[in-house]
Amino acid sequence: MTAMTDEALALPRTTSPNLKSWVESANTGDTDFPIQNLPFGVFSDNNSGIPRVGVAIGELVVDLAALESAGLLSVPYAVTDDAGQPKSVFRQGRLNDFVALGKAAWASVRTQLSMLLSADGTALRDNAAVRERAVVRQCDAVMHLPFEIPGYTDFYSSREHATNVGCMFRDPKNALMPNWLEIPIGYNGRASSVVVSGTPVRRPNGQRKDPDSARPTYGPCRKLDIELETGFFVGVGNALGSPISAADADGNIFGMVLLNDWSARDIQQWEYQPLGPFNSKGFATTISPWVVTMDALAPFRVEQPQQMPKPLAYLRGAANAGVDLHLEVLLKPKSATSPTTIARTNFKHMYWSMAQQLVHHTSSGCNTRVGDLLGSGTISGPKSELADDNVGTFGSLLELTWNGQTPLKLGNGEVRSFIEDGDELTLLGWCQGEGYRIGFGSCVGTILPALEVAAPESDE
Amino acid sequence: MTAMTDEALALPRTTSPNLKSWVESANTGDTDFPIQNLPFGVFSDNNSGIPRVGVAIGELVVDLAALESAGLLSVPYAVTDDAGQPKSVFRQGRLNDFVALGKAAWASVRTQLSMLLSADGTALRDNAAVRERAVVRQCDAVMHLPFEIPGYTDFYSSREHATNVGCMFRDPKNALMPNWLEIPIGYNGRASSVVVSGTPVRRPNGQRKDPDSARPTYGPCRKLDIELETGFFVGVGNALGSPISAADADGNIFGMVLLNDWSARDIQQWEYQPLGPFNSKGFATTISPWVVTMDALAPFRVEQPQQMPKPLAYLRGAANAGVDLHLEVLLKPKSATSPTTIARTNFKHMYWSMAQQLVHHTSSGCNTRVGDLLGSGTISGPKSELADDNVGTFGSLLELTWNGQTPLKLGNGEVRSFIEDGDELTLLGWCQGEGYRIGFGSCVGTILPALEVAAPESDE
Repeated sequence: MTAMTDEALALPRTTSPNLKSWVESANTGDTDFPIQNLPFGVFSDNNSGIPRVGVAIGELVVDLAALESAGLLSVPYAVTDDAGQPKSVFRQGRLNDFVALGKAAWASVRTQLSMLLSADGTALRDNAAVRERAVVRQCDAVMHLPFEIPGYTDFYSSREHATNVGCMFRDPKNALMPNWLEIPIGYNGRASSVVVSGTPVRRPNGQRKDPDSARPTYGPCRKLDIELETGFFVGVGNALGSPISAADADGNIFGMVLLNDWSARDIQQWEYQPLGPFNSKGFATTISPWVVTMDALAPFRVEQPQQMPKPLAYLRGAANAGVDLHLEVLLKPKSATSPTTIARTNFKHMYWSMAQQLVHHTSSGCNTRVGDLLGSGTISGPKSELADDNVGTFGSLLELTWNGQTPLKLGNGEVRSFIEDGDELTLLGWCQGEGYRIGFGSCVGTILPALEVAAPESDE
Repeated sequence: MTAMTDEALALPRTTSPNLKSWVESANTGDTDFPIQNLPFGVFSDNNSGIPRVGVAIGELVVDLAALESAGLLSVPYAVTDDAGQPKSVFRQGRLNDFVALGKAAWASVRTQLSMLLSADGTALRDNAAVRERAVVRQCDAVMHLPFEIPGYTDFYSSREHATNVGCMFRDPKNALMPNWLEIPIGYNGRASSVVVSGTPVRRPNGQRKDPDSARPTYGPCRKLDIELETGFFVGVGNALGSPISAADADGNIFGMVLLNDWSARDIQQWEYQPLGPFNSKGFATTISPWVVTMDALAPFRVEQPQQMPKPLAYLRGAANAGVDLHLEVLLKPKSATSPTTIARTNFKHMYWSMAQQLVHHTSSGCNTRVGDLLGSGTISGPKSELADDNVGTFGSLLELTWNGQTPLKLGNGEVRSFIEDGDELTLLGWCQGEGYRIGFGSCVGTILPALEVAAPESDE
């Protein structure tokens, strides 16, 4: 572990609060996508339907494949396909090809885009023909999953969340498991069912067992829940057998998204021992479409909470491992005209950092690949913040309603112990700068009713 | 659930015990790869190095891309790449493209290969020029992972194994968890670290905690173990939200491999609560290179063990859900000249069938994709079989040595509680027919010493 040099601490020019864009909607102060952000995503037009890489700026999306074609953007390396032909890493339905080029390419593209989109960048601003091809309104774009995701891992790194769950389901006096303060506990999730914001989520069927029944039954989940999380994408992988060191880990992370780890609590309670959650989680995980880069988040890095006991040596990382990222959860019943904010918290409370998660994940020699998604685990804040607006700081309904004991009152008069069919759940998140914010857009899912169970429960 | 019709029960002609091949080494009776087998894999020559699809026959590999080029093999559908150009599903470093063509294509290719390679098949036998290009000796071929594996799931479906582990680590009187007889318990594994047979496996470092120490330490695993498993590959996926029914599940399975789910028992014991095994498993999983198709295994289907209580309706599947597949484990210390057989058992003892695993996995709506790998869980036989040759029937050293209490004596005089550096572990498996066997080849890994721990354990 070497101390960060002044040079490393210096923020890149692309993050300067003084920057403005010729895209007016990027300068409003409350947009998620000012010129300091420039998050990457994959979008398609309603017209052509071909997914490609873009960045969000104000209310617009800029098509990087079109910029490249017009000679206004380039990557620092020649890229070819299997047949040796030149290949555009932006004319792809995933960020993997671009991100695999490495950190120098990320920085180069970000710098080029910052200059192109800045108030005095004329090359795109004054070229109506290219603008016509390369600029799309977000409301006219369809967003896709940003990465092809080879692996999805979910952690459990909020001390408050782990304590709350331990109090509810185990012993309140020993709510944290003995291993929790030593290990960034995590498990492998299901990559296939990670979906992009806006994808409807069908209530899962599964085995639930009432405490006073001899056997479980198979049917619709009765305790459907959210988990307010963030996720990060691996930008630089590691080979099998070659762990990532704590000193290097931050540099292997490309960027972050909001993540809703939908959870079927009744199914989870019955299935999870001894090998962990499975069907209670694998039916869907929703992420926000725009990947906010670690470069854009650099001004908002903060110290993570103090760790006692001091982690084992292999887990001791660099300073400022946390991110001051404000988070909110909104619930809108089908019949309501507006959503109710049901939780507010902040990512800075997370006990284990993203770097520590990645270090631990690879400490066995396990390999990671570009596009691997690592979820934070449910982000719950300290109880002392509960007073604010009477909105809780906990990142799940399980905790907010204390397993249904204290239902939430919504703005339209309805109450909720868990999620009902037709409910729309939204996660929001942003880092607040002076006069601007680095936002994540929204991470939304609406619940469809469960499929009818085809096979009846009988002894026949 | 409909009863199987006579037509469905009829075995395909490609499985007839009377078939012989013009490849003499396929007719020996004890080869793993007679003409009835025809397993698919991905191989490369030592010369060209370009991986492509092949089938094993006796001591040879037949190159399907070369057969296709020579006009001796075709798939029933036109396949094109993204640019609309004709594409060979065999000139690929993975089976996914071929298998994605569906069951009719699998059957068509298998039938064509059976005819080409049968004793009276002249088209390849008598064409020296094509044989020169299309036939390689297995000893001259390098085998690769057969599939690009989007997801790896590991089950826990041997009642004997779950009971043994429960006796050791929980309460012998209630060794099986209450959910075990209702759910084919499984968890998501790490797809990135699935490796092909022959790949050396490095002993992982990780957190281990002695019962009488206040804190864990980070260092080399002290209880490195195997898990004798089989795995199956999904050949037909399902869309998110569309479960696979028990009636359909068998048809979605392409074929099987041997699988060694290497396990770090000391790391596992400390990390696994409450979210399941993670670093104790994610450092490597070895599979055999040849995928034995369900078509080749059809003559060896048997009833699975009787299930009491009768499973919930959604898990009730077709008859003959089991496979009579003999399995062996061999251990060869670095200094030994020959291996010692340390376990013999049979896949037919598995309580939960492959079809039930797949049905349960998707019953929440979780999607599967072509190439997904589902592991059986450790295959341990009934204790009553222990007498045979004094070789145990348990599929792990944890069980064979009862957590190290009764070390194994090896042929060269050494003893083993767990795996030591330099040990070579081999899984073998075959279905015994009359005068032939459908074999799986071998699943081998040799243990390399752990990496030196870079960061010292200290309080500084």
